[in-house]
Amino acid sequence: MSLSTTDRTTVTRHRERARTERADLHAVLDAGLVCHLGLVRDGAPVVIPTGYGRIDDTVYVHGSTGAGWLRIADGAPVCLTVTHLDGIVYARSVFNHSMNYRSAVVHGPVRHVTDRDEQLAALRAIVEQLSPGSWEHAREPDRRELAATAVFALDLTEASVKVRTGPPADDEADVAAGDRWAGVLPVRTVFGAPEPCPTLPADAPAPAHVADRRPE
Amino acid sequence: MSLSTTDRTTVTRHRERARTERADLHAVLDAGLVCHLGLVRDGAPVVIPTGYGRIDDTVYVHGSTGAGWLRIADGAPVCLTVTHLDGIVYARSVFNHSMNYRSAVVHGPVRHVTDRDEQLAALRAIVEQLSPGSWEHAREPDRRELAATAVFALDLTEASVKVRTGPPADDEADVAAGDRWAGVLPVRTVFGAPEPCPTLPADAPAPAHVADRRPE
Repeated sequence: MSLSTTDRTTVTRHRERARTERADLHAVLDAGLVCHLGLVRDGAPVVIPTGYGRIDDTVYVHGSTGAGWLRIADGAPVCLTVTHLDGIVYARSVFNHSMNYRSAVVHGPVRHVTDRDEQLAALRAIVEQLSPGSWEHAREPDRRELAATAVFALDLTEASVKVRTGPPADDEADVAAGDRWAGVLPVRTVFGAPEPCPTLPADAPAPAHVADRRPE
Repeated sequence: MSLSTTDRTTVTRHRERARTERADLHAVLDAGLVCHLGLVRDGAPVVIPTGYGRIDDTVYVHGSTGAGWLRIADGAPVCLTVTHLDGIVYARSVFNHSMNYRSAVVHGPVRHVTDRDEQLAALRAIVEQLSPGSWEHAREPDRRELAATAVFALDLTEASVKVRTGPPADDEADVAAGDRWAGVLPVRTVFGAPEPCPTLPADAPAPAHVADRRPE
């Protein structure tokens, strides 16, 4: 299924980088750990890093009901962006330097989640996005914790996906000059060895969902 | 020197994570490769990933003069956020799961850079942030390329920095129960082996500024 096209999801620069399949959008979102959520406060933009989770064509974020950035009205416009930096593109010219990346930008009105079942499913999706296996392993939220947690939904109705891959695009004259290196330095996210909480024995083995975890 | 405090840079949630020294702000910015720039278009927020560079207490972004997202008026409010994810914090409870991170959020009016010297210095800072050494190694921008590049400045006057480090903060009862693992899975950004442009011999050695590069 294709992504719908609106003015603000139409890629105007480097159209060849646009991806138009819904599966591409899901893939970029599902591979991420942090999103950057934009909202408007007093006419000015605010961009906050936060965790998120996806269920079908809805993405969820959450926060403490005491957090200032959550003072956002039901239905207010937000923008949720997820970016993966895959490589630094070194060109013969400064001008053609670039990045290899995958990014998804989702626009739409935020919806306050008030249904208890949806709230719980959303929290599960958020936790499983950040730390797959934790919902089963850890203690589930109790009534007090759920009451302290606000959950917001954003439909994946209006979104754009951009992907750049491959080598630099140098000018012919710069390639012909032959005197400069060009190429890509891959960038990857990796996990280190799990560090047990100091309240545990130092040799307490991490469970498989942590110890065997690999980046998407 | 301390960061100034305004309503929107006062951390309201997890105050212990706030950093108030200007050096902390510089450190978070200088260690990054991508920022997320927020602006307001037709009353809605738009959040775009892009490169950036810092000179003293000004941060710069750039883009093609043909890019739609650059249609932003001189003086319009923007928000520039840089986030480093340092670890996934596994707690005994789902509720206390968290992330270790460093983030900087800068607010202010954007300034169109029209001075040629400042434009060139800003481009150099942006290139050197993404690819240190490239300004010396690669061909500098010519007149046509400079004309095609818009540069925007944002003063670091109004900014907040948040840092979370260390183990999970579990409830005492969950720790006492003793039946669940908790700890931190470190997250790191690493570089792979440089991949020469296909127009170069496959064994063309990358120069030291690429081959010896390590993440900040």
